[in-house]
Amino acid sequence: MTDRKPPEVGTPAGMRVLNQRAVLDRLRRLGAATRPQIAKDTGLSKPTVGQALLDLERHALVRPIGRTTSGPGRSAVVYEPNPAAGYVLGVDIGRERIRAAVADLGGSVVARVDERNRARSAPTLVRTVTELASRTAADAGLALADVVVKVIGSPGVIDQRSRVVRHAPNLPGWESAGVLDGLETSLGPVVVVENDANLAALGEHVYGAARDARVFVCATVGTGVGMGIVVDGVLFRGAHGAAGEVGFLPFGRSTTDVQRGQFEDAAAAESVVALARERGLPARSAREVFTAARSGGAQALEVVRVEAERLAFLVAAVSAVVDPELVVLGGGVGSNVDLLLSPLEAALRTMTPLAPPIVAGALGDGAVLSGALAMGLDAARELVFEVTL
Amino acid sequence: MTDRKPPEVGTPAGMRVLNQRAVLDRLRRLGAATRPQIAKDTGLSKPTVGQALLDLERHALVRPIGRTTSGPGRSAVVYEPNPAAGYVLGVDIGRERIRAAVADLGGSVVARVDERNRARSAPTLVRTVTELASRTAADAGLALADVVVKVIGSPGVIDQRSRVVRHAPNLPGWESAGVLDGLETSLGPVVVVENDANLAALGEHVYGAARDARVFVCATVGTGVGMGIVVDGVLFRGAHGAAGEVGFLPFGRSTTDVQRGQFEDAAAAESVVALARERGLPARSAREVFTAARSGGAQALEVVRVEAERLAFLVAAVSAVVDPELVVLGGGVGSNVDLLLSPLEAALRTMTPLAPPIVAGALGDGAVLSGALAMGLDAARELVFEVTL
Repeated sequence: MTDRKPPEVGTPAGMRVLNQRAVLDRLRRLGAATRPQIAKDTGLSKPTVGQALLDLERHALVRPIGRTTSGPGRSAVVYEPNPAAGYVLGVDIGRERIRAAVADLGGSVVARVDERNRARSAPTLVRTVTELASRTAADAGLALADVVVKVIGSPGVIDQRSRVVRHAPNLPGWESAGVLDGLETSLGPVVVVENDANLAALGEHVYGAARDARVFVCATVGTGVGMGIVVDGVLFRGAHGAAGEVGFLPFGRSTTDVQRGQFEDAAAAESVVALARERGLPARSAREVFTAARSGGAQALEVVRVEAERLAFLVAAVSAVVDPELVVLGGGVGSNVDLLLSPLEAALRTMTPLAPPIVAGALGDGAVLSGALAMGLDAARELVFEVTL
Repeated sequence: MTDRKPPEVGTPAGMRVLNQRAVLDRLRRLGAATRPQIAKDTGLSKPTVGQALLDLERHALVRPIGRTTSGPGRSAVVYEPNPAAGYVLGVDIGRERIRAAVADLGGSVVARVDERNRARSAPTLVRTVTELASRTAADAGLALADVVVKVIGSPGVIDQRSRVVRHAPNLPGWESAGVLDGLETSLGPVVVVENDANLAALGEHVYGAARDARVFVCATVGTGVGMGIVVDGVLFRGAHGAAGEVGFLPFGRSTTDVQRGQFEDAAAAESVVALARERGLPARSAREVFTAARSGGAQALEVVRVEAERLAFLVAAVSAVVDPELVVLGGGVGSNVDLLLSPLEAALRTMTPLAPPIVAGALGDGAVLSGALAMGLDAARELVFEVTL
């Protein structure tokens, strides 16, 4: 991400940078501390730690936040990583809405903007995202150039080699050439575009319902159907970035009928609406169906049951392949776990002996944005150190 | 696997062991070499390399195999890792046959025995495996105790925490308590029991059709249906060792019929025979069906087409979840790629845009055994160094 060479190990300048990194890592991992505490935790001498803190403070990577008031000996200055050392931007491009947030390096969200997605072409959407990003940065008193890393969550498979987005039918024109490069040009470095379901999974892992899970999946069922797979804290992307594209699971019709449908057509929001209409319930959205079911409407409850059985197919299929310890459900349809869970689990028991626990996402419709910020923070913490020192 | 502590870094004895390891690793990775070549490749001084070679030769971990005959200066001794420094055993427990092989540390198979599996209970099967293992070792002039690592491939999910094998209906009694401990007791240390489809995938990765693949799956379709998933050279096992248990994929019947079947019932060898009989072809085995198809029998070809469509469901489902760059097909049914591939690929194109290349396994019915030896060699090369020095 940068042209700077790493400092040479073994030279005094190289040693100095390594010590600064050790001190900063200690503060980021374990929180604010004094010079003697840092010396103890890192194994470095107190003078070395003192020098490293001076260097880091001069570059605004750490800051003093007060003094110890009790304990033996003289009071000591307490240092913490400077949250204002850098900022990251997260964007969630959905068919209906676009959400953006800026967070400081400490992970605190300092601005957040949310608006309808009215774009009906790729160039318009790139412009909308850029304007929204600038506005969000401005709300935090920043220029876009002050933002170290920008992570954009998008539907579809992000093909980094060909620099195009594939399989994103819900965003008009979004699969055309130049979209990724357009985002990069207009947002400025460093831009990362990532599949939105992957970011939702990362968000639930870092901040949400899957914090302790070693191997889990997060299914997002709404306008489309997607899934993020996290293994040992890292997104599993497959060979071409298409891992978790479970909207393409073959689904439905009889055993001998090859021309199968695909899972997304059977389980995304539109099919919930279609199921309701088939049963004489004139719903305009999946949300209306779930609201009706929550009020006890018999037709709506029947639609929920059918949808839950379809989601059971998804969970059973993924369990047979990935064997996750946890399934997190989110998205406009999937997040209705209060209604879906019981029929889903009942159907699952008839399908497979490999039935993992299923929980609702903890981040609601902010999961993608949280994941984008988490990914951005990871990259930015590395980057500000490299660029500054 | 051993109680020995690693040598302390920084002590002379510790340095000596580290140097020996560096020299041995160089020889294992790049092949036979002289003292000056090793010094050049490792960055160690020639006297240090000389001392390490003396130590390694005294412990029979390396051996001289000749002298250089040309080039400048005096001729030099050429060393290679001593293949007789240790032996590993691999066993493949199938419903029909049990296969065993012993290989030296160089990976050469020095004995191989294969017999019908007549065991109809778990204790009998443990005894059969142990006898076969001893016999194979004896054929190589070894006692079982001389074999450093024994890797046993078994159907089912190996639950290491509860120490039982789950989901292995094709081996009578094999899911009962005590089987894993029984194998360990009667074979002696070190015993590793691993899912057979996982070992087949590992075998195809190390020796076979998937040598260059970073993310691939190997489907074994025969008596049962299993799959090994390899990512960056490592088996992906999931949260409970059940990753790739694709026999449990929900399969068949209509969309609204929850009580689905499972994929293994629809695609394993028995169902090929059942399909043939439904079409008036009185086959006794899947092999007979494929033989008839190879002679152009119309009914048999129709059965092959239906089976290929079912396998297309498997490939489509796994591609939507894992996104492999390659699918390797093996097993008594799956290995008939000459007949299956064309209808499989045709069906796949109607099901998914994510269709990876499909190839036949290169190791035939020796894949599990090869994988067992590969896994054993990996562990044994580490172990003999630790135990010897």
